[in-house]
Amino acid sequence: MEPRLKAKNECSKCMINQDVFERIQGKVLTAPERVNKRGTKPCLFGKGGTCCHVCNMGPCQIVEGVEELRGICGATAATVAARNFGRMVAAGTSAHSDHGRGIAEVFYHTVHGETEDFEIKDEKKLRMVAYYFGLDYKKPVKELAKEVAVNALEEFGKQHGELAFIKRAPEKRQQRWRELGVVPRGVDREVVEMLHRTTVGVDQDYRSLLKASVRCALADGWGGSMLATELQDILFGTPQPLRAVVNLGVLKEDMVNVTVHGHEPEVAEALAIAAQDPEIIKEAEKVGAKGINLAGICCTGNEVLMRRGIPIAGSFVQQELALATGAVEAMVVDVQCIMQNVATVASAYHTAVITVSDKAEIEGAMHIPFDHKHPVESAKKVLREAISRFPKRDKNLVYIPPNKMDVVAGFSHETILYILGGRFRASYKPLNENIINGRILGVAAIVGCDNFRVFEKTHAELAKELIANNILVVVTGCAATSIAREGLLSPEAASLAGDSLREVLEAVGCPPVLHMGSCVDNSRILIALTEMVNAGGLGEDLDDLPAIGCAPEWMSEKAVAIGNYFVGSGACVVFGPNFPTEKSQIATDYLFHEFYHIFGAPWVVARNASEFANIMIDKIKEKRKNLGIDKPKPRVLFDMAMRRALEAPKISPFHGLGCFGPTHLKVEEEEQTAQ
Amino acid sequence: MEPRLKAKNECSKCMINQDVFERIQGKVLTAPERVNKRGTKPCLFGKGGTCCHVCNMGPCQIVEGVEELRGICGATAATVAARNFGRMVAAGTSAHSDHGRGIAEVFYHTVHGETEDFEIKDEKKLRMVAYYFGLDYKKPVKELAKEVAVNALEEFGKQHGELAFIKRAPEKRQQRWRELGVVPRGVDREVVEMLHRTTVGVDQDYRSLLKASVRCALADGWGGSMLATELQDILFGTPQPLRAVVNLGVLKEDMVNVTVHGHEPEVAEALAIAAQDPEIIKEAEKVGAKGINLAGICCTGNEVLMRRGIPIAGSFVQQELALATGAVEAMVVDVQCIMQNVATVASAYHTAVITVSDKAEIEGAMHIPFDHKHPVESAKKVLREAISRFPKRDKNLVYIPPNKMDVVAGFSHETILYILGGRFRASYKPLNENIINGRILGVAAIVGCDNFRVFEKTHAELAKELIANNILVVVTGCAATSIAREGLLSPEAASLAGDSLREVLEAVGCPPVLHMGSCVDNSRILIALTEMVNAGGLGEDLDDLPAIGCAPEWMSEKAVAIGNYFVGSGACVVFGPNFPTEKSQIATDYLFHEFYHIFGAPWVVARNASEFANIMIDKIKEKRKNLGIDKPKPRVLFDMAMRRALEAPKISPFHGLGCFGPTHLKVEEEEQTAQ
Repeated sequence: MEPRLKAKNECSKCMINQDVFERIQGKVLTAPERVNKRGTKPCLFGKGGTCCHVCNMGPCQIVEGVEELRGICGATAATVAARNFGRMVAAGTSAHSDHGRGIAEVFYHTVHGETEDFEIKDEKKLRMVAYYFGLDYKKPVKELAKEVAVNALEEFGKQHGELAFIKRAPEKRQQRWRELGVVPRGVDREVVEMLHRTTVGVDQDYRSLLKASVRCALADGWGGSMLATELQDILFGTPQPLRAVVNLGVLKEDMVNVTVHGHEPEVAEALAIAAQDPEIIKEAEKVGAKGINLAGICCTGNEVLMRRGIPIAGSFVQQELALATGAVEAMVVDVQCIMQNVATVASAYHTAVITVSDKAEIEGAMHIPFDHKHPVESAKKVLREAISRFPKRDKNLVYIPPNKMDVVAGFSHETILYILGGRFRASYKPLNENIINGRILGVAAIVGCDNFRVFEKTHAELAKELIANNILVVVTGCAATSIAREGLLSPEAASLAGDSLREVLEAVGCPPVLHMGSCVDNSRILIALTEMVNAGGLGEDLDDLPAIGCAPEWMSEKAVAIGNYFVGSGACVVFGPNFPTEKSQIATDYLFHEFYHIFGAPWVVARNASEFANIMIDKIKEKRKNLGIDKPKPRVLFDMAMRRALEAPKISPFHGLGCFGPTHLKVEEEEQTAQ
Repeated sequence: MEPRLKAKNECSKCMINQDVFERIQGKVLTAPERVNKRGTKPCLFGKGGTCCHVCNMGPCQIVEGVEELRGICGATAATVAARNFGRMVAAGTSAHSDHGRGIAEVFYHTVHGETEDFEIKDEKKLRMVAYYFGLDYKKPVKELAKEVAVNALEEFGKQHGELAFIKRAPEKRQQRWRELGVVPRGVDREVVEMLHRTTVGVDQDYRSLLKASVRCALADGWGGSMLATELQDILFGTPQPLRAVVNLGVLKEDMVNVTVHGHEPEVAEALAIAAQDPEIIKEAEKVGAKGINLAGICCTGNEVLMRRGIPIAGSFVQQELALATGAVEAMVVDVQCIMQNVATVASAYHTAVITVSDKAEIEGAMHIPFDHKHPVESAKKVLREAISRFPKRDKNLVYIPPNKMDVVAGFSHETILYILGGRFRASYKPLNENIINGRILGVAAIVGCDNFRVFEKTHAELAKELIANNILVVVTGCAATSIAREGLLSPEAASLAGDSLREVLEAVGCPPVLHMGSCVDNSRILIALTEMVNAGGLGEDLDDLPAIGCAPEWMSEKAVAIGNYFVGSGACVVFGPNFPTEKSQIATDYLFHEFYHIFGAPWVVARNASEFANIMIDKIKEKRKNLGIDKPKPRVLFDMAMRRALEAPKISPFHGLGCFGPTHLKVEEEEQTAQ
């Protein structure tokens, strides 16, 4: 290796596919090189939340405690950090929610017969959602679906009242939210209010701002994101565990490779349908290819991995490298986390970067507007463009690395029931039992992005440490792909788990790390946690659970929104390697300590995998102690009171509905008994 | 004057009330001192729009054209500048629209009998608004008002279709918007989409981003802001010209001084009612005061100046100084442009800073939540707090400067008709005639904030130069207050106008500068311009008019939203002394040149008053040339074709409705004739 190359590779991310990276180096600049050229430290004011840029007297860089270095208007570091934090939450909420709105529109078109390419795939979930909208959920599907479509769209524009899915949270949590005045009214309204509060001279108390940021975030987690997940499941199917493959090695030398990148499943679903069209396959064969090979990148990848087992070529940090294999005919991108540089990298090859969303174009990319009423037709256009590029592929430039890894994915919160509970008593009770008896110490979520500025392989190391400590891990987003590359998403990886966790996993044939989907699908984790509360024995609210979340390489503002809705829902969240308010000790203290008193869960920061693991294990143990299940011999702990709690879980009108909806007979029986 | 003082006073803003400023210096830090301590140049990347802070790989400071200094993701300077511009528009739109939503809620409470403190004051306008909402506008008021209230709230949450007031624009403009796909669907939705587009890896083509920013801005101008103005007029009365006084000298030594600061009229209206309550006056007298003296600051000030003639103590840059008079018992603040430092300055006196909005608190301020169902009751609480402070006023600290200035304000677009058209032919025709015959060269709007970083008295100098060139000037916001201080808002100032403009002004007894209200009231200017088009003889669309806008000291993000909706509507806007995208030549060129081709109007930047004046006069002359009314002898110019155009203006179903609504008999007659 040349010395020049060595000096450049300070960033660990290009080590992921070092061989591919080397082939592109010197041709076009890539992100790891840009990181190195910029140096490792970006502006500290910006990074730490104390650069104020909301008015044209600024930007003002604020130093906490220095009177002369408040903003020109007198804004303190705490105000500015809280405002910036609030805006991140608003931006993240916007992204997820606009995604949700998009799918609500596709849903609307579909059930109103304006497109024939999609159909209702999960009727049970449709009825469950209808139930929460207050509709007569026993109506014929066709009619009900239309009402659900209208109601779903209305959730975004609502001006008053409460978002429908708020009722899915544990009752105690709902009560707390109502007392605090943080129940979101409508998705869009909360974003707009947050943005208003953070304009110059409006809300200037960090406490008030940060509390408001929770209301906005809840509109994401229990609103926009949850609507996105549920409607996608209804339309494209609720994920079921399936085997698939991950990493750049999934690209094929003899096929037209089309990568689907971004966050929304609509386009990718249409491409998947179109790629199976005999006519399209024929056209591909005509140019000498064996067919179309779809491969996912980022969260669009996760969407079609979860539902169709379509392989994932890479996570966020691998998007340039996928192109640098020289084997990709088209990278189809919808929205979010698409690096503008993909257009530049693609230009060094025969590859087309194709934008399809009406909200996202890229300079230098080809734009093929997606017709939402004829998605498969649009998908065919896209595939034909890809096919036309295949003959232009330069074999000398092609290098597909051998790396690929088998995974099991597709763990919706519904299927976790079956996996852990077995087919005939689908419930979270067995999970709770195993937590109470100590076989499973607790549950940890590793979510969020990967990030070129993080110089460690945090995700996989952390996951290994957690499972070794008998903590069941759930993952979403690019963190999931990152962990998948290391092989932790296969049942065989159970061997890496601590003894008691391994025992449980082996009994049911389950991987130690459960892939729950894309980043909007973090809403699945909210429901899973709620189901754990409902199953009984682990307290009455989400903050009672021995559960914790983290985003060790957060990059997008969406991660801040996600973290904030988890904290607001009562689940502690660890962020790293930096925290967006850290240049204001006052604002940070409020999030790290006062939030614990207000919401039952704090934000925490950690710098590396082992720090993450220590904090997370400690917090889980703390919760176990609070629940009185912290003593060494698990069997003894599971006393009669616990047993009774499990046998007779608290019955609320919504019990069990998170997963099964009102058509699930057992729930109805329980409800009748309770009345 | 001490040398130290001299060195500090580089900022012209503290020269406005130098005497007051000197009294506070050394006690607490104020904005002008903070400007001096920071130096005159803030971070150039931030200032010029090329600091990217939308993800945690950054902040990335981008240098246009330097490949290594694109964002880590490859974002170009143009993308980043366009994203930042888009976010400013979204934030500004949020602020105005959330204000509009707030007043829509007050309106709702009022017409549903949930508060008895307010009432419908402009029935004609109610019917006009109902007409645009597609309601049966002839219904009894009570019933109609309820429907209007529901419809108004729905405008914010709408997901599809078009905002109702879009139909008020000239037909040609509507057509252009529809072709470009920039007609806003719902106010909130456009904000959320803009925020989504600007998150990491979504829209990365500056052209697409900047076009989308127009859709968002139109949701402000023809949506949130216009709803705010119209509903406020219905509820609190449409302004009529009235005499009032402006500047710190309006504070009274022998009264309880309460300043109302922020942007919304609700609280100030309630305070105005409560201040006249005999019981309250008695309580004030009990502590030795002669009563309550309400005085406005910033745009809340403009709201009650326009409708009630309540004096204005100061503009944005005077807020700290108002407190430094030592004569203010309470500064009541609602939302927007309230400097956090007011709490610090007030703490050096007996003054209470009282926050009342549920969206805005300030560290160190007193919070008295405003009960929207009992506003006057809440107002009394606030006044009692102020009264209780009066005995604590330290006479040694009191200094009320002598400066005050008589003004005539209250020029809603409806009253301009009467002023310029006379009582019996209320119309914009006389204005158009005078423009066509050259007596009036054109119309210029000077709007927006004042700004501690602008070291010139731009507003008044510019206004003087424009009127000297026979340009009629309209003003709003803090620019209006700034110009008012210089005496240009009185009919006597007509003497400063050019000969032919003076002739017109003297004939009708009108000031050369017309105060049209607060910053949400810029929507009045949109309607006034539309009326000019409808009145005939000056083209068929807003971009045909010899009219131009400017914000020479813009500070708030709201100014960017306002500017963008004017440009999107076809009116050229000059900004200064800096432009928020200027570190990307590519993005700036698009706004400065391509926008002209797309929307018929460009953005422009100017650095000082004379540059502003030159550009504005030139642009107006250019429009006159395009209309063929640029030749030297005005009388000759007004030829028969023009005359005919004026006599028979284009009849559309909406003609004249901008001002008078469907109950205006003449319009109905015209419509019938046209059918």
